[in-house]
Amino acid sequence: MIEVKEALEIVAANSSNMPKQKIQVRKALGYVLAETIYSPIAMPPFRQSAMDGYAFIHSGRHQFDIVGISQAGDHVKVKLKENEAVRIFTGAHVPKNADTVVMQEDVMANENSILIAKMPEPFSNVRNKGEQINEEDVVFDANTVITPAAIGFLACLGITEIQVYKKPKVAILVTGNELVEPGKKLKKGKIYESNSIMLQATLQTIGIKNAKVFRVKDSLKETKNALKDLLKKNDIVLISGGISVGDYDFVKEALLENGVQELFYKINQKPGKPMFFGSKKNTLVFALPGNPASSLTNFYIYVYPAVKNLMGFSNTHLPKIVRKLNDDIKNTTGKTLFLKALYDETSVAILDGQASSMLNSFAIANGLVIVEHNCEKMQAGELVTILPID
Amino acid sequence: MIEVKEALEIVAANSSNMPKQKIQVRKALGYVLAETIYSPIAMPPFRQSAMDGYAFIHSGRHQFDIVGISQAGDHVKVKLKENEAVRIFTGAHVPKNADTVVMQEDVMANENSILIAKMPEPFSNVRNKGEQINEEDVVFDANTVITPAAIGFLACLGITEIQVYKKPKVAILVTGNELVEPGKKLKKGKIYESNSIMLQATLQTIGIKNAKVFRVKDSLKETKNALKDLLKKNDIVLISGGISVGDYDFVKEALLENGVQELFYKINQKPGKPMFFGSKKNTLVFALPGNPASSLTNFYIYVYPAVKNLMGFSNTHLPKIVRKLNDDIKNTTGKTLFLKALYDETSVAILDGQASSMLNSFAIANGLVIVEHNCEKMQAGELVTILPID
Repeated sequence: MIEVKEALEIVAANSSNMPKQKIQVRKALGYVLAETIYSPIAMPPFRQSAMDGYAFIHSGRHQFDIVGISQAGDHVKVKLKENEAVRIFTGAHVPKNADTVVMQEDVMANENSILIAKMPEPFSNVRNKGEQINEEDVVFDANTVITPAAIGFLACLGITEIQVYKKPKVAILVTGNELVEPGKKLKKGKIYESNSIMLQATLQTIGIKNAKVFRVKDSLKETKNALKDLLKKNDIVLISGGISVGDYDFVKEALLENGVQELFYKINQKPGKPMFFGSKKNTLVFALPGNPASSLTNFYIYVYPAVKNLMGFSNTHLPKIVRKLNDDIKNTTGKTLFLKALYDETSVAILDGQASSMLNSFAIANGLVIVEHNCEKMQAGELVTILPID
Repeated sequence: MIEVKEALEIVAANSSNMPKQKIQVRKALGYVLAETIYSPIAMPPFRQSAMDGYAFIHSGRHQFDIVGISQAGDHVKVKLKENEAVRIFTGAHVPKNADTVVMQEDVMANENSILIAKMPEPFSNVRNKGEQINEEDVVFDANTVITPAAIGFLACLGITEIQVYKKPKVAILVTGNELVEPGKKLKKGKIYESNSIMLQATLQTIGIKNAKVFRVKDSLKETKNALKDLLKKNDIVLISGGISVGDYDFVKEALLENGVQELFYKINQKPGKPMFFGSKKNTLVFALPGNPASSLTNFYIYVYPAVKNLMGFSNTHLPKIVRKLNDDIKNTTGKTLFLKALYDETSVAILDGQASSMLNSFAIANGLVIVEHNCEKMQAGELVTILPID
């Protein structure tokens, strides 16, 4: 049995970046860049007006003849004289030798000429070529996360394809004779199987949308055969249940017989103690506890950072935050506790229903309060560390 | 022109809940419940062992004959005598008159009998029927957000379908003669169109995955015709560009001629001033500024809470947080400023590149710092309000 800290280190050390892939920018939300991006163009690509108004050569003169018009999308070739101006609109090309744009609100105009009532400073309202970025400049460094704004910026530079880290392919293997699919009739002694769709949903929240679910009975042979195939075809195999020390828990044996290297088994924590982590070639195996709340806790603590690592994120852990405790906490277990909690901007309340089988409190929690194994007591008012899970 | 606060109130007052729909629990992540859910079963549905061990009648006796076995999924019918115990596993049915389970680590066992070395308290390690929830009890109130844990809890109660508020159908209409699709060659005077895929990506982050994009040239007739159809078929129409006062901005006219009621036009803010908000029947129309950073700012400030309202969320605004300013801020504009910023657990830094055309800073920002229109100056060290956008 190892401590949480050590378990986290082992997971981190064994989860390296996925291979790279080309992807369309429009589909890249939530991926991480695997290359440095350089701009193919200057932005703006030409001198642009920042206003609807008139472009002219700033000289002290107030009156101008209108000799042309520049709409957004146009490229006007007119060469202005000192007494000439061009009607211009936001985003439109500023004629070659014009240096200033006056906004239309500051002008009196008739069909053929204007009088500037309020003279702008020289060079006003002109966005210079490359003001935002120049050709060949760095747009984003490798390891930048692709946000909506990043997609917008790439698109406005005309970039349609980028290289990112692949997302891992994840399979979920569910074990247990007691499990019945929701929607079917529940016979005596059976319970509904809920971990698989809960884990699928949790994976969705971090961008893994197509995790497939497989089911086996509590049988060494069946478990072993299922794993053989899953280990070949996936980057991560999540197993639900069958990993405690009961006589009918075959998962560990089935893993070892399939050549999976054990990296740790059992962690000094509550809930979530019976967990196995191992690897075979590039495939990571997390055998999670069968109890729903334990399973979800360990997903957030161990699987989440591993998936993030694989996807190339540099902050792979859930961000930790600190809040004032509303309640006293006792920890007589000698284990690290992860307590379902509800926090706001200033404080955090520990929720009722912390048992490993209970999901009620998890469904309304927005964080897990961490109580270290060697911390026996925390008092209301003390600062405590929280993993946000919302 | 109205103030930000008033604009927000008008958006809120005009965005009510979408109609309800039945949905499979497995597809319900991120939806909001439109009904109160009652449990169809007790959970646990029967008395369960919380440990691998032995079930017996607590009487002071330490030695027991093993008369049966209860695995997870079994329903044992044995009636224990005082000197009898049953081998039992985690999650398995506890025989009718057994009251206590001793964990296997505290027992010396041979094939036929056990000796309890460390006697547990009476009723230890037995999860009572309905300990988590009883039949007919409330599982979730209406307006609960469906999280992964909520999906898990619903599934473990055997619930496969729930009633939620529909997600709005959103269309994006892009206007502008100057716009070229990324990937094509950029002619002089043109720029790449990036707002549509940026808005699509932003919608994705709040669960709207299928927003369709339509494009028109700067022509009143074309804009009007496109809008006519879009207003009929969507719950929200987002329009990009064409809404400032330039002679070639036809959007407002096209909206009014289509019977859209103006709810406000222009907001006293920077960036994002030229924005139109209106409605026709149940369809909301947001005509966003064409400048990318203004467009995205107004999406987060106005469209985001409207979408959340429609989806039934009760906290419809981005959560606001408060941090210490790293920099002085001057506001000589008399407008409410939304500044791209990067915050951590304690402080916030204002980013370079705040111009409305610039997306660079947005791509690395994780929040927008709000400076009220009537606030002329804020000093480093002061507390400031931030809308997180990560």
